[in-house]
Amino acid sequence: MGKNIIIFQPEGKRVEIEKEDSILSAALKVGVDLVSICNGKGTCGKCKVIIDNMDSVTSLTEKESEMLSNDERKNNIRLACLTKVKGDLTVKVPEFSRTGKQRLQIEGIETPINLNPLIRKYYLELEEPTLDDPRSDVDRIMDYLYENFNLSNLNMDYYLLKNLAKILREAEWKFTVAIWQNTIINIDINDTTDRVFGYAVDIGTTKLAGYLIDLLTGKVVAAGSLMNPQIPYGEDVVSRLNYPDQKKLQDAVIEGINQILNDLKEKTAVKSEEIYEMTAVGNTIMHHLFLGIFPLYVGRSPYPPVVRETQIVNARNLGVKIHPNGRIVFLPTIAGFVGADTVGVVLSTELYKSEDICLAIDIGTNTEVVLGNKDKMLAASCASGPAFEGAHIKFGMRAASGSIENIKIDPETLDVEYKTIDNEPPIGICGSGMIDLVAEMLKTGIIDVGGIINRSLNSPRVRRNEESIIEFVVVFSDKTGIKKDITFSQQDVSQIILAKAAMHTGIKLLLKNYNIKKEDIHKVYLAGAFGSHINKESARMIGIFPEIDLEKVIIVGNAAGTGARMCLVSEEAKKLVEKLSKKIRYLELGNDPDFQKTFMNSNIIPYADLDEFPEISKTLKKYGNYPEQSPPKF
Amino acid sequence: MGKNIIIFQPEGKRVEIEKEDSILSAALKVGVDLVSICNGKGTCGKCKVIIDNMDSVTSLTEKESEMLSNDERKNNIRLACLTKVKGDLTVKVPEFSRTGKQRLQIEGIETPINLNPLIRKYYLELEEPTLDDPRSDVDRIMDYLYENFNLSNLNMDYYLLKNLAKILREAEWKFTVAIWQNTIINIDINDTTDRVFGYAVDIGTTKLAGYLIDLLTGKVVAAGSLMNPQIPYGEDVVSRLNYPDQKKLQDAVIEGINQILNDLKEKTAVKSEEIYEMTAVGNTIMHHLFLGIFPLYVGRSPYPPVVRETQIVNARNLGVKIHPNGRIVFLPTIAGFVGADTVGVVLSTELYKSEDICLAIDIGTNTEVVLGNKDKMLAASCASGPAFEGAHIKFGMRAASGSIENIKIDPETLDVEYKTIDNEPPIGICGSGMIDLVAEMLKTGIIDVGGIINRSLNSPRVRRNEESIIEFVVVFSDKTGIKKDITFSQQDVSQIILAKAAMHTGIKLLLKNYNIKKEDIHKVYLAGAFGSHINKESARMIGIFPEIDLEKVIIVGNAAGTGARMCLVSEEAKKLVEKLSKKIRYLELGNDPDFQKTFMNSNIIPYADLDEFPEISKTLKKYGNYPEQSPPKF
Repeated sequence: MGKNIIIFQPEGKRVEIEKEDSILSAALKVGVDLVSICNGKGTCGKCKVIIDNMDSVTSLTEKESEMLSNDERKNNIRLACLTKVKGDLTVKVPEFSRTGKQRLQIEGIETPINLNPLIRKYYLELEEPTLDDPRSDVDRIMDYLYENFNLSNLNMDYYLLKNLAKILREAEWKFTVAIWQNTIINIDINDTTDRVFGYAVDIGTTKLAGYLIDLLTGKVVAAGSLMNPQIPYGEDVVSRLNYPDQKKLQDAVIEGINQILNDLKEKTAVKSEEIYEMTAVGNTIMHHLFLGIFPLYVGRSPYPPVVRETQIVNARNLGVKIHPNGRIVFLPTIAGFVGADTVGVVLSTELYKSEDICLAIDIGTNTEVVLGNKDKMLAASCASGPAFEGAHIKFGMRAASGSIENIKIDPETLDVEYKTIDNEPPIGICGSGMIDLVAEMLKTGIIDVGGIINRSLNSPRVRRNEESIIEFVVVFSDKTGIKKDITFSQQDVSQIILAKAAMHTGIKLLLKNYNIKKEDIHKVYLAGAFGSHINKESARMIGIFPEIDLEKVIIVGNAAGTGARMCLVSEEAKKLVEKLSKKIRYLELGNDPDFQKTFMNSNIIPYADLDEFPEISKTLKKYGNYPEQSPPKF
Repeated sequence: MGKNIIIFQPEGKRVEIEKEDSILSAALKVGVDLVSICNGKGTCGKCKVIIDNMDSVTSLTEKESEMLSNDERKNNIRLACLTKVKGDLTVKVPEFSRTGKQRLQIEGIETPINLNPLIRKYYLELEEPTLDDPRSDVDRIMDYLYENFNLSNLNMDYYLLKNLAKILREAEWKFTVAIWQNTIINIDINDTTDRVFGYAVDIGTTKLAGYLIDLLTGKVVAAGSLMNPQIPYGEDVVSRLNYPDQKKLQDAVIEGINQILNDLKEKTAVKSEEIYEMTAVGNTIMHHLFLGIFPLYVGRSPYPPVVRETQIVNARNLGVKIHPNGRIVFLPTIAGFVGADTVGVVLSTELYKSEDICLAIDIGTNTEVVLGNKDKMLAASCASGPAFEGAHIKFGMRAASGSIENIKIDPETLDVEYKTIDNEPPIGICGSGMIDLVAEMLKTGIIDVGGIINRSLNSPRVRRNEESIIEFVVVFSDKTGIKKDITFSQQDVSQIILAKAAMHTGIKLLLKNYNIKKEDIHKVYLAGAFGSHINKESARMIGIFPEIDLEKVIIVGNAAGTGARMCLVSEEAKKLVEKLSKKIRYLELGNDPDFQKTFMNSNIIPYADLDEFPEISKTLKKYGNYPEQSPPKF
């Protein structure tokens, strides 16, 4: 078999590949940004590329015929995963096939906490060894630390020990020790006690967020974020689990974490050697993949994680580019589908010490919900799927430049007012935009409570697409950045309903198992990747959560990341999360006899029993869109 | 520069080297057994080789002219370190230039001890996870261990954790855990609780001894030994410290330890994965070199070690071929020149619990002496040098096949009766042989108490050699295995005196500092590499230790190795050595104002004050060799 050259445009990236390799694998090889949700199975239809020479690729497959429109086919568009290379060619990756440089939520609530990190520094000035005092180098240090700082029962990191003798003499016995818990992990020449940093990381399925923290003040020095580099291996956790080479996934996420850190270091002139600890949160599968723990069974019923307790690994063993003797602390998980991120949410919202019962919703590819107070906490995981992050939605995209994030529909004209990120011409709709859109469509009667688009509306915006599916035109092509209409079809509405139904079901079953009513909920914490851009009124309108006074709903942004930061700066927080992970009881929703029924009822917007949503009902009545006939209820 | 081929005979080993490389470096490269004491500095004169073609090497250096006899020069003998290669040649390494395959002392005393190793195995049969019981794999194991064996506060080795999920399912939940202290370090499929092994190692400057132990019985399953592969880099610790690439020394000793282990595994069909812990003893420099701890300052006044406490390192981090998650435990040291081997001697002789004061002497390249009882112990290090191991002695060699290990001299004829190891024709004299020889020479008046050979003796055995130095012929050439006379010169006697004087001085100063007399010593434990072959009467006669009733002297062989074995099988012993290392006080002999004087007096055999040796005096009088004039006393 020979080799072929592919050039990817507009990047101009060039790669030599084996004949019969797919274009997607070539793009992965050379790091071209190309969406693949189904991980190359040819089922998501997302990896559309434009081919310059059809003779250099294999002919159109049956699957592609189904998934590509006539127009697309005419324009030489193919699916990168199903198209194999026979000769040299140039491939153009259009904007709609890119994940884009995203706006990522890295802010979170600030929860007051005592500054008490596990890492401490001390400056020492020792006497040199003499024949009268030939104590070992280690004894000399330990004795001084005991006499001057009353520290005892310390030990010395083995890798530091190896070069200790040289460092001490180079320092002429004036130096600074860094102690992590009870272990001396670093020695600097001279006094560096004013330089102590840590790194907190939130490993999301979709995005990574990193915070560089000054451990002397507890403040964030710099923060950054990045798409999770595992995405090309599958958009959701389950497709990642099915990727055969798990080591690649581990390497990818560690590289991403290092890349954010590099940016933060450059911005702040902090050095790797000054960062002594990293704390991490993430769902249980992110946890296993990052640590290199065999993850397959976490994704298979009955979803047992391998380990739940806090994991501490030396940075050198993971290749994370903080100090090589630094420690990586991964917060504890709760169950296979409720991870350290949820523990972080409970910690930072202080749900665990509330007298009143609160609800925390951490929206993501999996949405975790926790209900409880200081006495009892119940957690569940809802398979909300990646729809809110843009997957499975024709014009869905993540919160990147040009994505529509807010929408208002005129009830008379059905004209759409919208706002895009960076005010760029729209190229797609992100999660908060979709929530607004569905809420507005309901309010204005474009859809009914069953989510069905009203075909009888007399508007050019409601039409059948070429596959005869009813769709709503959000933006006409002349206003978009992609030179085609941005639409939202009956199928797209269904995807959003599935997602919201999963969350609503989880919350409903938690309430039932906790044996309380929605009125008993004191506060709702809405957390997650797009948490702070979400319109809480729209979220309530589409029934993500039960109808609760909006003033009770608090948007807390990346509360999981805040939990990681709190654990970084506080030994007590580290101990607390270990307790929380044991205390929070996991509820397997699939086991509940009401699951099926509740899920069916949740497929109505906002919910099959409209009496549970008196405010929404009032709004629908006001707009004349309250259903004449009660929706089916199971 | 071109390449040249050297062939080493009789091995027939072939090596290609750069022009201008020395023959010694070529020998090292290809692993030819060739003695080098001075580490190639051209000062020891030991690396004699026979050259087939003098045109292929550089011409005779001045140093060689001094060190080689006319005969040797005529026979094409050169010093390998000073001879550089200009063309292809064949080099013969004569027997006297080889370290030889040694007889190595691996037996030691048996000290009773409670069997309580840190490693334990338990067999488990677990229920599979279900939706009603989706506990983590680790929780499932920990809960079972608590419920069935009352074990708590355990953790799981990170590297085991990584593949835990796979192993448990492959085992169908029937498996055996191996717990080291509080950490689960291995899981075997099915019940392997009957297979638990450990490895104890004594890392001597000159030799390595290894013991494979069944931790269910505490018995030695197999034992083996090997020359320390560091020897080519320098015979004594100080020349090894001066070798520029310390990593090579670490690699060499680890390879030696693995080589012994390989032999033991082959003999016993024990697998690496069944060996969960290795304990090690050795002097402080061996300790640092093995662990890769920068050792240079240990060898420089005031000789501070880097670390004294017990070191625990994962086998995977050192490349020792026991189970990769197994632990390497290096016993604690006392000071720069009193190491973990001495701690092992104190442990195995039980000196630390004696009511009466005892003396332990661990003879080696450095000789460590400990004096004390359960209340107080003092230790010192004596720079006895490698003379007893054959270095710096013209016909000195280690206890290998063909070495003379026992000697008797007829007081009338001065004829020598001897015994060689394996009854081979003699090729040299080992340590115990030299001690006998000097004792016999003193008794029979061949030397006086000052060590001076009596030139007026009318015997063909006493003669001047070609450098005009007086020597005693031990074996004439026709009886030897090397076709030349085995002699013992005035210089050789001086070397032995220096060695014994160092030891005697150490013991004397310990007694002084302890403020007791030799009569107060309850027992003398004589330990070390050639400990059990030594003739204790001869040792006392030449004044290695003060005149003490011979029945008080106990030969304990490799007591350091016994200490390592005891720590392997007993958690209490491990704790005890940590206490011992702190309790044993180190006495720096060089600091004692009497050092010089005592050392001078110790240069007399047995000692300047003959009244301190009434038994020896009686013997000398009986043989008519008591000095007419008292030896000089300082």
